[in-house]
Amino acid sequence: MEKVNVGVIGVGRIGQLHARNLKYQIPGIKVLAVADIFEKSARETASQLDVPIAEKDYRVLLENKDIDAVVICSSTDTHAQIISEAAQAGKHIFCEKPIALNIEKINQAITAVKKAEVKFQVGFNRRFDPSFKKAKDLVSEGTIGTPHLVKITSRDPEPPPISYIKVSGGIFLDMMIHDFDMARYLLDQEVVELMAVGSCLVDPAIGEAGDIDTAIVTLKYESGAWGTIDNSRKAVYGYDQRIEIFGSEGCIIVGNPTPTEVIVNGAEDTKTDKPLYFFTERYQEAYLAEMKEFIKCIQENKEPPVGGFDGKISVQMGYAAKESLTRGSFVKITR
Amino acid sequence: MEKVNVGVIGVGRIGQLHARNLKYQIPGIKVLAVADIFEKSARETASQLDVPIAEKDYRVLLENKDIDAVVICSSTDTHAQIISEAAQAGKHIFCEKPIALNIEKINQAITAVKKAEVKFQVGFNRRFDPSFKKAKDLVSEGTIGTPHLVKITSRDPEPPPISYIKVSGGIFLDMMIHDFDMARYLLDQEVVELMAVGSCLVDPAIGEAGDIDTAIVTLKYESGAWGTIDNSRKAVYGYDQRIEIFGSEGCIIVGNPTPTEVIVNGAEDTKTDKPLYFFTERYQEAYLAEMKEFIKCIQENKEPPVGGFDGKISVQMGYAAKESLTRGSFVKITR
Amino acid sequence: MEKVNVGVIGVGRIGQLHARNLKYQIPGIKVLAVADIFEKSARETASQLDVPIAEKDYRVLLENKDIDAVVICSSTDTHAQIISEAAQAGKHIFCEKPIALNIEKINQAITAVKKAEVKFQVGFNRRFDPSFKKAKDLVSEGTIGTPHLVKITSRDPEPPPISYIKVSGGIFLDMMIHDFDMARYLLDQEVVELMAVGSCLVDPAIGEAGDIDTAIVTLKYESGAWGTIDNSRKAVYGYDQRIEIFGSEGCIIVGNPTPTEVIVNGAEDTKTDKPLYFFTERYQEAYLAEMKEFIKCIQENKEPPVGGFDGKISVQMGYAAKESLTRGSFVKITR
Amino acid sequence: MEKVNVGVIGVGRIGQLHARNLKYQIPGIKVLAVADIFEKSARETASQLDVPIAEKDYRVLLENKDIDAVVICSSTDTHAQIISEAAQAGKHIFCEKPIALNIEKINQAITAVKKAEVKFQVGFNRRFDPSFKKAKDLVSEGTIGTPHLVKITSRDPEPPPISYIKVSGGIFLDMMIHDFDMARYLLDQEVVELMAVGSCLVDPAIGEAGDIDTAIVTLKYESGAWGTIDNSRKAVYGYDQRIEIFGSEGCIIVGNPTPTEVIVNGAEDTKTDKPLYFFTERYQEAYLAEMKEFIKCIQENKEPPVGGFDGKISVQMGYAAKESLTRGSFVKITR
Repeated sequence: MEKVNVGVIGVGRIGQLHARNLKYQIPGIKVLAVADIFEKSARETASQLDVPIAEKDYRVLLENKDIDAVVICSSTDTHAQIISEAAQAGKHIFCEKPIALNIEKINQAITAVKKAEVKFQVGFNRRFDPSFKKAKDLVSEGTIGTPHLVKITSRDPEPPPISYIKVSGGIFLDMMIHDFDMARYLLDQEVVELMAVGSCLVDPAIGEAGDIDTAIVTLKYESGAWGTIDNSRKAVYGYDQRIEIFGSEGCIIVGNPTPTEVIVNGAEDTKTDKPLYFFTERYQEAYLAEMKEFIKCIQENKEPPVGGFDGKISVQMGYAAKESLTRGSFVKITR
Repeated sequence: MEKVNVGVIGVGRIGQLHARNLKYQIPGIKVLAVADIFEKSARETASQLDVPIAEKDYRVLLENKDIDAVVICSSTDTHAQIISEAAQAGKHIFCEKPIALNIEKINQAITAVKKAEVKFQVGFNRRFDPSFKKAKDLVSEGTIGTPHLVKITSRDPEPPPISYIKVSGGIFLDMMIHDFDMARYLLDQEVVELMAVGSCLVDPAIGEAGDIDTAIVTLKYESGAWGTIDNSRKAVYGYDQRIEIFGSEGCIIVGNPTPTEVIVNGAEDTKTDKPLYFFTERYQEAYLAEMKEFIKCIQENKEPPVGGFDGKISVQMGYAAKESLTRGSFVKITR
Repeated sequence: MEKVNVGVIGVGRIGQLHARNLKYQIPGIKVLAVADIFEKSARETASQLDVPIAEKDYRVLLENKDIDAVVICSSTDTHAQIISEAAQAGKHIFCEKPIALNIEKINQAITAVKKAEVKFQVGFNRRFDPSFKKAKDLVSEGTIGTPHLVKITSRDPEPPPISYIKVSGGIFLDMMIHDFDMARYLLDQEVVELMAVGSCLVDPAIGEAGDIDTAIVTLKYESGAWGTIDNSRKAVYGYDQRIEIFGSEGCIIVGNPTPTEVIVNGAEDTKTDKPLYFFTERYQEAYLAEMKEFIKCIQENKEPPVGGFDGKISVQMGYAAKESLTRGSFVKITR
Repeated sequence: MEKVNVGVIGVGRIGQLHARNLKYQIPGIKVLAVADIFEKSARETASQLDVPIAEKDYRVLLENKDIDAVVICSSTDTHAQIISEAAQAGKHIFCEKPIALNIEKINQAITAVKKAEVKFQVGFNRRFDPSFKKAKDLVSEGTIGTPHLVKITSRDPEPPPISYIKVSGGIFLDMMIHDFDMARYLLDQEVVELMAVGSCLVDPAIGEAGDIDTAIVTLKYESGAWGTIDNSRKAVYGYDQRIEIFGSEGCIIVGNPTPTEVIVNGAEDTKTDKPLYFFTERYQEAYLAEMKEFIKCIQENKEPPVGGFDGKISVQMGYAAKESLTRGSFVKITR
């Protein structure tokens, strides 16, 4: 099995998480370099993780012949450009979602990747969550017969800063994009049209920033099955990520994992843990599993299970949701 | 406390259930008469429950001065007429839902009830389910702050006969009507508009009968909160009746009760009971509680908690859903 | 099917419960008489339940030719004598546990019952709880293979009055007697020896009354399987009645039912209901089921599933536990 | 914070697990050497984990001045000797349980450790399980008032090879030793006496090897609280590790974690995952947490939370259980 040298581009919270997983949890890998527009961040991460190279400019990593693959965790607006350049430099690419908020840019990135024939995986981490994966596998195996309904609950424990909201592309492209991918993943089929409703119920400042914080989207699948996704930017009890798939022969429900299995029977009620706080806690295993899969695809020359098309379609679903919200009716998904 | 003499009109499955509850479980009541268009049914029920009077024609009951209250469980198309006549005869009235499928008839029935100043309760039994009632009370007490989202799951274990489907008024007026009432009950506020989708996924014969068997309705509440209801005519695992209310300070979830608390840890998996089979099992306590409440309202001269307006608005929501399904857009609820 | 006329002897809390079940929930029965040493209680109960005869002296009931069966719910010290007399009078007998605290008296009662060839059922209500019954049935069907371990948890929400403790026979004969019966019932085999430990941890007044309030008993079954029973007189969270049966092919666990299925996700933790408060709530269905079974055994001329031998052996296990507590070693069960 | 160089002695399953955790998951550590009596194992592990030194003889590690601490995972009979030598060599010591099966040897090891003033931690990993730790902390904080009862369930998914059984010291010293430590840990107090029962129910070959495979031990705590531990060598549904602590103000219950949160509602029953398979799965976090704690104690010059006394007392409890099984009565714990 080929040893893979990796460079991580962008070492904010999620970049550091991937760098740490690559360094400590995936055998046969070397994290050769990190880059960050904030050079200090790059240096600190390199020092902490004993990474030989720390750069401000990601291009230095792309020019480094020893680096086989890059993991792109920089800000969204830089993804497409870096993908294109990395592909031209012959690097395999793992890129955090979304590829871009602009479909044209996504197309260019996908074209560059195809031309270069490098591996390309998009960071839809939830596909690698053991519970969601089991649910999907059970659906594939026919355990619940023909799927009729999919219900996805996805609520964050707290909204991001308003400054982030403003550049995020809005709730459908920033938050629900994960759920659009989950909706497609669970039934292994496309959504043909969707209808969005929503409003600002959590924090008026989000509304003033031009976004909404609460949304429900109804989905129609190719097969005729129906789905709903509900999002809220703030669930005081923690990260709420549940799914339900109802079919002709049964129903699969995935609940939230908790930090412990402790039950306290008290004089007033019975108490258990609230759900894990947020994505780094909830998807710890999923983040590691997706990166292992990416490395495995490089080593075994396989196509990554979630790539450019998935990255693009989820953005298109986000745009369809935006349009539906304005028009007040169903909108077809462009493909 | 006044002793109440009751007559039960219509002794099919649900009429028998009410008669039995009245006879055996509610002290201070006398079931004086039963009537059924199938006279044999009336006689058999009377014999089983030791009820003195069994009639074919409900009018005999209305003319009986000793009868204080009637419980109407005849077929839906007869409800409004019987309500009007019973009101004129000065009887207190408990009527199974829906009052009628025709708004004009509902209005006439409500007018008759108001004029006669009799008690009038509509059989939205689920409001009296201990779990749903607790959920509603917690919402009222502010336990979860301001409600943002309501999710109602409502699936039957098996579809009714096609012959019934044909005269049922369709899934929205026959089945989802309960969920419309639940949606209003839980937040104690009105739904202002709704959007319905759905199709025939369970049994083509239902489609041939002009109905659908799978539906999702999105609701917008007065307060700006959002809701969804999903219905299926067939859940192989039994009656699936769950709700969720998400608010600014928490989330309330009501699951399905099961026949036992037995858990079996086996070599392959861990098994627990499936939910209770259908409404007579699931809502056993609720059916009794609603009838106790009706009798109590008579005895204490109180207004029943669920009456004509509730009966009417739920039908109007059903019609709005039908219209929305056709139009493919949100439809406002007429009040 | 024969109509059965029943008399209830002793209408304290449990007597009233049985009388109410017989009156309202069991078709084909007539509660013809009630008796209570406190005549006022007898009269009040008779009035409430519309029972024709109310007497101070139970002998009047035994002399009444119309009465087919008696349900004995008087104080424990009167059970054996009433059983003997009722048997001589040819009445079928349901008697609350225990038959007596004195083995000689139990033997006399059993002999009288056998001689008179009347039906005799002892009130081990828990055998009729749907969860415990399902657990036992699964064991019988071999679902968990050969049983190796049985664990019974049995804790009351609060201790009885000290005045009751003093005449109760002590925790093993008053409280754990139910668990001894459960232990035998679940595996359908006898316990050959047991070892008891315990002390007064809940309330020193219980100790001063010569009893303990916390106890653990280890059981050895005929088959070589082992069991434990733990008792506490006070669980602040309500009636705690759980069992576990571990075998070569799996494990069955029965938890506590709760009043509702409501889950509240809050900022601090997730809350659910505490268990049902006490035996009248928890064993509501079981009390009804055991009485239905008793009536059915009379009507169908079958042997009741729990009779004199079961009543006697559970008392003998209680005495063995008392002796073991004193001796500090295992004690064989006399049969 | 001091950088710590570690040597791992014995790289069987558990040694490899610790080496991997030290290498990949604990920052500021260097795994400098591994030793194993099977030199090939040492070399393979060193190669996989990029460890510079691989030796057959652990003494080479003890002589290496660069090594600050050793992690002893060799066979039980070598623990005490290696501890003594490592202490003399001034190494901090983490040693898998048990220290030895011979009390004299344990005393010598403890004396050597004390004299050398090195850190010494014994591998009672379960203390570091997040659920058990939370339960213990809740007890310490008084959440359930004064503890009255402790119940520990501990069942392996399958017995070890008979060859291992023969040298294991028997179920009480090999398996229940963990539960003895858990019993002391949960209440933070000593057990004063215990009573053991048990037999061979799982596999006659275990009996022929002179051991039992099913056991129940009753514990009496210093405070007067009572406890039970039940062990089985074979639970077909996986590793069953549950606890319950009942007190004057409530009850804490810890259940088994499962691989996923998937629930499948099917036509026959509702299915969820069985528990995690065995200790490497269940105690993954605990193994890491105990090692982090050991390293932290070295770096911050703190006393490890579980040391020589704990290692010794658990063995003494094992011997007391053996004696009790033979004598059929309670046996006091020597300290």
